Amino acid sequence: MKFFAYAVKGMQGLAVETEAGLRGLLASEAGYPGDLPSLIRQGGEALAHAARALQHGQPVDPEAVSFLPPIAHPGKIVCVGLNYADHAAESGLAQPGYPALFARFSSSLIGHGAPILRPEVSEQLDYEGELVAVIGKRARDVEEAEALDHVAGYSIFNDASVRDYQFKSPQWTAGKNFDDTGAFGPCFVSADALPPGCKGLRLTTRLNGETVQSAMIDDMVFPVARLVSICSRFMTLEPGDVLVTGTPSGVGMARKPPLFMKHGDICEVEIDRIGILSNPVRDRAARRG
Amino acid sequence: MKFFAYAVKGMQGLAVETEAGLRGLLASEAGYPGDLPSLIRQGGEALAHAARALQHGQPVDPEAVSFLPPIAHPGKIVCVGLNYADHAAESGLAQPGYPALFARFSSSLIGHGAPILRPEVSEQLDYEGELVAVIGKRARDVEEAEALDHVAGYSIFNDASVRDYQFKSPQWTAGKNFDDTGAFGPCFVSADALPPGCKGLRLTTRLNGETVQSAMIDDMVFPVARLVSICSRFMTLEPGDVLVTGTPSGVGMARKPPLFMKHGDICEVEIDRIGILSNPVRDRAARRG
Repeated sequence: MKFFAYAVKGMQGLAVETEAGLRGLLASEAGYPGDLPSLIRQGGEALAHAARALQHGQPVDPEAVSFLPPIAHPGKIVCVGLNYADHAAESGLAQPGYPALFARFSSSLIGHGAPILRPEVSEQLDYEGELVAVIGKRARDVEEAEALDHVAGYSIFNDASVRDYQFKSPQWTAGKNFDDTGAFGPCFVSADALPPGCKGLRLTTRLNGETVQSAMIDDMVFPVARLVSICSRFMTLEPGDVLVTGTPSGVGMARKPPLFMKHGDICEVEIDRIGILSNPVRDRAARRG
Repeated sequence: MKFFAYAVKGMQGLAVETEAGLRGLLASEAGYPGDLPSLIRQGGEALAHAARALQHGQPVDPEAVSFLPPIAHPGKIVCVGLNYADHAAESGLAQPGYPALFARFSSSLIGHGAPILRPEVSEQLDYEGELVAVIGKRARDVEEAEALDHVAGYSIFNDASVRDYQFKSPQWTAGKNFDDTGAFGPCFVSADALPPGCKGLRLTTRLNGETVQSAMIDDMVFPVARLVSICSRFMTLEPGDVLVTGTPSGVGMARKPPLFMKHGDICEVEIDRIGILSNPVRDRAARRG
């Protein structure tokens, strides 16, 4: 089932995809089942029950609402660098034998349709299409064979990166945490609706309609189950924690000449059977002006 | 004023230091002013008002309570690497011209007195004594000259690091985020009670009573005001966000032979006029057994 978090006039809502389009309920309406983080924390059949309630909700016009990140304030946003061998190669970085993990703060998150903001301080704003795995059940010291039992579902991320800031020091945090650069959505798809670990699905990134990244999820160096297991060996993963699983080759900085995002662009990340995360690009200065 | 977050029998409380020892109120008691994150968010005179209420609270026996991290779930925990030139040198890493920023997740935090857990998977558990600055007022694009206006107060951190995991990939996240390795406390000291940016104060780390780190806060490459300003150039800092400002030389991995923490050790980090953060070290296996 596909869930969409949205807002209308400052009120949050949750919708599901039906054959008749999106149907949903606002938090103020009778029968509202709660937001995605609370449904995921509840576990069990909570998502399925919510889906049934929402199917009887009001029609939701995608043009009339603001989409929100499926999880607005995850306890952790664990991002993975260099998780596709061809991307490590194009970056000129050695493929590590252990995942290159870094963090985003939730202050950088935006939803589907919201503008990715290019900061005044850099012209090197790059796209990175990625698969997101959302933790559904606490995980500590989990074997890879059981790891997918701890995943509630999947989503899409555009890990927009400010390259000169990413490489100003040995740690990438600054370049990965500019306000309004972490696009997350458009929806959350429960794991039961997708192949295990999203194997067999294709990820495609398009900038202004032109395909700039295209890869199979199967090409990950550390697939979802292994990432969950590896992270669980040093820390406790909690329901609602988010793993952003890395980007394949084709990023703008590796192109000759480099291809960075600029005011007026549209960047889309598509993953089969999940959907299309689409965001316009705006200059921060223009937005503030 | 020095504030101490604590718990007794699962109930949270807040205390202040008075001439007659700690006085505090539990969340269930009349007059409880709220926890530190909410007081810091309120801003203005909220901390001063709370201190006055707490001074008339009950005596708090430090031996009879569990101390909690002053902020248990910060929106961000921004850590700074290589922020003392002599530590960068001993680490064999170049001193970057921009701070090496990395993140901790709140799942790694423990309070004063709680055991730092040495994981089963490594013998390279190292200490790092550090000053913490807690944001008090939203900061975006703040000049260094105004940056300290956005700091509510200070605390102490032991950024205990699992060195082999820290260096398994180019990003340090894993080695910095083992459960129960981020000791934070013992107290939160409001900025008005300390020199600006904690200039002139000494930081000392002791392992089993022996001094292993000793440095002046003034020796930071990027002082607190500059760190706040730099971070505010790419992201919005919110009240309750935490900056862990880096460690001076003397860490265990740089010694010959290396000096790592082991079961039964006691590690203390002291900063003048803030206090002493003391934590025993325990094997995680022993604790679970």
